[in-house]
Amino acid sequence: MSDVNRQWVLASRPTGMVQESDFELRESPLPALQDGQARVRTLYLSFDPAMRGWLNDVPSYVPPVQIGEVMRAGGVGQVVESREPKLEPGDIVQGTFGWQEYALATAGGPAGARPVPEGVPITWPLGVLGGTGLTAYFGLLEVGQPKPGETVVVSAAAGATGSVAAQIARIRGCRVIGIAGSPDKVGWLVHEARLDGAIDYNHEHVSARLDDLCPDGIDVYFDNVGGKILDTVLARINSHARIALCGGISTYNSTERAGPRNYMQLVVRSARMQGFLTFDFLPRFGEAIADLSAWVQAGEIAHQEDIQHGFENAPATLLRLFQGKNLGKQLLRVADPEG
Amino acid sequence: MSDVNRQWVLASRPTGMVQESDFELRESPLPALQDGQARVRTLYLSFDPAMRGWLNDVPSYVPPVQIGEVMRAGGVGQVVESREPKLEPGDIVQGTFGWQEYALATAGGPAGARPVPEGVPITWPLGVLGGTGLTAYFGLLEVGQPKPGETVVVSAAAGATGSVAAQIARIRGCRVIGIAGSPDKVGWLVHEARLDGAIDYNHEHVSARLDDLCPDGIDVYFDNVGGKILDTVLARINSHARIALCGGISTYNSTERAGPRNYMQLVVRSARMQGFLTFDFLPRFGEAIADLSAWVQAGEIAHQEDIQHGFENAPATLLRLFQGKNLGKQLLRVADPEG
Repeated sequence: MSDVNRQWVLASRPTGMVQESDFELRESPLPALQDGQARVRTLYLSFDPAMRGWLNDVPSYVPPVQIGEVMRAGGVGQVVESREPKLEPGDIVQGTFGWQEYALATAGGPAGARPVPEGVPITWPLGVLGGTGLTAYFGLLEVGQPKPGETVVVSAAAGATGSVAAQIARIRGCRVIGIAGSPDKVGWLVHEARLDGAIDYNHEHVSARLDDLCPDGIDVYFDNVGGKILDTVLARINSHARIALCGGISTYNSTERAGPRNYMQLVVRSARMQGFLTFDFLPRFGEAIADLSAWVQAGEIAHQEDIQHGFENAPATLLRLFQGKNLGKQLLRVADPEG
Repeated sequence: MSDVNRQWVLASRPTGMVQESDFELRESPLPALQDGQARVRTLYLSFDPAMRGWLNDVPSYVPPVQIGEVMRAGGVGQVVESREPKLEPGDIVQGTFGWQEYALATAGGPAGARPVPEGVPITWPLGVLGGTGLTAYFGLLEVGQPKPGETVVVSAAAGATGSVAAQIARIRGCRVIGIAGSPDKVGWLVHEARLDGAIDYNHEHVSARLDDLCPDGIDVYFDNVGGKILDTVLARINSHARIALCGGISTYNSTERAGPRNYMQLVVRSARMQGFLTFDFLPRFGEAIADLSAWVQAGEIAHQEDIQHGFENAPATLLRLFQGKNLGKQLLRVADPEG
């Protein structure tokens, strides 16, 4: 074990597109362990579009990351040293370890490190069996309320959350159309995720393709992108449609925020647009993970991981999300487990 | 009875602000009655902001009014001639009679003329005991779902619908803040409608006043106006807030439609924005009218009618809504009942 910790800290608040230079790599000595603490070596870091919001100095569901503070991130790591009986050296655990090679962890509580489930790859609890899978599950089922035979549209459908949401809708007997940004992604959606159709928004007319693929209108929209695509969908919603607002990645790095011009469609269609936070459903996480595990293991949910390598690439890996480069869950491999 | 009918027909589709010149006054002979029809003389016409939407050639919850067609409007009239046994000469009835002095009416069905309730002024079924009262009732209670002690904000709160919604919220034990456009309206909201506070958006800073009057944030917003005020409220919503989208009068006459820039607050606050059409609740109209009647008669709901005079003033009366001139339900008196 090194006695130096490398950390990426927030150096400046981005305005507009986040840049690698908004972060700074620092080295610091490893602090001594206190009773009740364990030292965790980071193995994989998780990247999500929502992390962009944590960089803005505005009130939100979590406090903003402060200048000089280690960038917040979920991860999987291995206990290397411990003064906490529940966390033994060698254990593989998950938690909000941040962009650093070594983190101090406690056990128990929402902020504590917890063991990863056995029998699945150690990265899955960061994606399909973790935050993104849970977000897809509750957003689609509880907010979207899809009924068999309804038409469901999902944006950023090849992303970690969108891909799971779209396939849960397919499992529930819906007609599902995915929107993504490249021919590769569209191919994956149709052939691997087995959606009823997919649209490449970078190379096709979304409005015309939606008209083709959703001849009976749109009942549920699981939105990860906001912007023009949200307006294009709003113009095609059915009566009593439900829009599950998961994110708005098209706007996160924009200094000029525009809202959905067609929002009055909600009135004339008696429809709703609803945001949600996965933690609202905390008491039901166990049930959701059980369903997701069963679907993944039965081959009903295909999922992909986009794994980058090397701790020094953390900022560049974050940027991949906003460049549309990732296909599936974006991860960074920092180290391999030992023993 | 005259043998000539005067009608206001749509002469041109407005772009931007509707003008009196978008309508044309025509005279035509009264058609002969068919079996099952009655001739109704218009007594009062009802005016609502939603009528602006009927002039746009876009799909909506009702077909657009066509060029050359009599302007659609609800009204109260008196049967003057009948070949329908259920509609007897002298009966006072309500229905969608349009901007004309004489209408042909049938009985039964949603499009049929129906008797006004006894024991209340004949105009009330056009307002507090009619469409606007029902819209306020279901929008506030079913979409807004206010709980005692919560903070409810209502825009266009001195209008026909907003004033009823705000007072139902007060009756349900909420802290209620109204937003309106003049000192007179604000005075009425505080002294007659007995709200907890009111804001004059033309002469006060809405954001600062909302901060003062809603120190615990906003749980329910009943929105009639859209635009900047919607964004100002979105910035102050609490977790799990509900926005009942009733209308967006600030945008109806605008050629540049902007959406709510702050809609992503719905995500970080796990909140929802939901449109509704009063007719979705048709099976429960009786229950709502009973509640509204009881509240009005007990003095729990104050309401006002703004009555203009003379059939020739129909277009000018519509414009009053968009000029913010009306206080309460906008009506036009066309004739007095006989007998």
